[in-house]
Amino acid sequence: MHNYINQQLETLHWNIAPRELYLPIGYALESGGKRIRPTLVLMACELFGGTKAEAKNAALAIEVFHNFTLLHDDIMDNAETRRNRLTVHKKWNANTAILSGDAMMIKAYELLENTPTHLWSKIFPLFTRTALEVCEGQQYDMNFETDENVTLDDYFNMIRLKTAVLLGAALKLGAIVGGASEKDAQHLYDYGIAIGIAFQLKDDYLDSFGDEKSFGKRIGGDILCGKKTFLLINALTKATKDDRILIHNTLANCEISEEQKIETIKAIYKKLEIPRLCEEAISNYYNRALQALDKITDHKNDKKPFIALAEQLMQRVD
Amino acid sequence: MHNYINQQLETLHWNIAPRELYLPIGYALESGGKRIRPTLVLMACELFGGTKAEAKNAALAIEVFHNFTLLHDDIMDNAETRRNRLTVHKKWNANTAILSGDAMMIKAYELLENTPTHLWSKIFPLFTRTALEVCEGQQYDMNFETDENVTLDDYFNMIRLKTAVLLGAALKLGAIVGGASEKDAQHLYDYGIAIGIAFQLKDDYLDSFGDEKSFGKRIGGDILCGKKTFLLINALTKATKDDRILIHNTLANCEISEEQKIETIKAIYKKLEIPRLCEEAISNYYNRALQALDKITDHKNDKKPFIALAEQLMQRVD
Repeated sequence: MHNYINQQLETLHWNIAPRELYLPIGYALESGGKRIRPTLVLMACELFGGTKAEAKNAALAIEVFHNFTLLHDDIMDNAETRRNRLTVHKKWNANTAILSGDAMMIKAYELLENTPTHLWSKIFPLFTRTALEVCEGQQYDMNFETDENVTLDDYFNMIRLKTAVLLGAALKLGAIVGGASEKDAQHLYDYGIAIGIAFQLKDDYLDSFGDEKSFGKRIGGDILCGKKTFLLINALTKATKDDRILIHNTLANCEISEEQKIETIKAIYKKLEIPRLCEEAISNYYNRALQALDKITDHKNDKKPFIALAEQLMQRVD
Repeated sequence: MHNYINQQLETLHWNIAPRELYLPIGYALESGGKRIRPTLVLMACELFGGTKAEAKNAALAIEVFHNFTLLHDDIMDNAETRRNRLTVHKKWNANTAILSGDAMMIKAYELLENTPTHLWSKIFPLFTRTALEVCEGQQYDMNFETDENVTLDDYFNMIRLKTAVLLGAALKLGAIVGGASEKDAQHLYDYGIAIGIAFQLKDDYLDSFGDEKSFGKRIGGDILCGKKTFLLINALTKATKDDRILIHNTLANCEISEEQKIETIKAIYKKLEIPRLCEEAISNYYNRALQALDKITDHKNDKKPFIALAEQLMQRVD
């Protein structure tokens, strides 16, 4: 799937005029990544008897849209690198990243216009609603940086919008192209939402309790920047008044080392059994994913790849 | 038309969560403007016997899209004000303007999804192609700032993409919704391209030779920032070697006053008969607009408003 998607991405030509607009798009798309979202489109289409070729354009649209969000998010976060290469706004400049990002989003719609016209009334509203939700998720994520009263509900709503809905939409788009019934397409969407949330919870968990080598990035980043993760929000909710003060003071303390900060917070997390709570939540969403999958009845091919994917996401240590 | 459009814009609700994302959109849309593009959609629909109500959603989509481009352009140009109010990125910040702009572009597609589904195969590709062209136009415009070899062809291509195609698309969308034939819709598109280019030429002319009071902004702004306008490009082409050097030296001279700069360049323009050349070009595009209009045969209502609009644009002094 991964190779097929990369091959298809290469059929899109970005060495066109004005090159200042299109080359950064090619750069952003060639930088790799796991191509999870377009893979989901293809898998969903095949589940209902469609072919990869039929789902290709929806898959490319989703991948181009996803990379558009990364381009603009990287400006907003002032990120230096992405996938070990300079971000577009660092390699070029912010104006280039804004305008090339805009063009990418429109290109995503153009790719979607290559899907069969009779499916558009299902495809376009789904894609548009999802795209707006992803913007909303990004806004909530930015709000969280300064909002001191983020609840667990707020957190789940944010990760659903920022991460999960695009996985759900990728699957539902593939299902629609593959000829699924409205009901089955929705079940696959629900599966996507559940694995998306589980995926984000796992990411929160690994950022504090993962193995540095296999996680691929430094452990404790979320703790150091005081990010409102599942772990921190739950810890602040469950903590005694003294522990809550200790958490706040530790995060705000400029005189202790980063290592000390991370260790202190992790010790509190462990004392409050937050890691167990997080594992339970992941397992809960994993089960919801399998239940949604179970409800799909009118499929032409085996569901096993979806079960395997859910398991893989649960076990991932990267 | 203007009031109708403002009323319809008010039916869009932006006081929704997350407010940080949607309020800036409401702010950008309520700041007025001439509403030329949505007016064109409605006029075009009525020409072919459709109603304002039928064309409403396409009109709103065009206006929301246009204001999205202004939002992002203002970041790129670091503009302080727009229509006598702070720009979104100055009132809030660049991140807000980026993300709210993104949401606006998606909202434009959402509005377009309220048009009759059986017209989507005409409406969506037109809108998407136009949106990409507008991005390309903005890119060329930015390139011109540092490109010393901008030809007249480059200039016309840029203003066609940056300004004219959206007017053409507005008209064509209205015509499609109004039930025009493909041919007539295309004639109206061509009319829009021609008045769009004439409009931009007039703007270039007035920026140097307009009346400060009726033009509404300071005369000579383009000259002072060395903008590659129809006037400057033609002057550089027609000038003797000595005059060309005088133009370059005047624009680069930091020791003379702004007034002196403007007067020197205007004197060269006059000597080279550039104002006459510009008036001829405007008149040429005005005639092309009327010729395109003339080819429309299967209309239900009078073409007079389109003739009046072309004349108004030609005579405008604002």
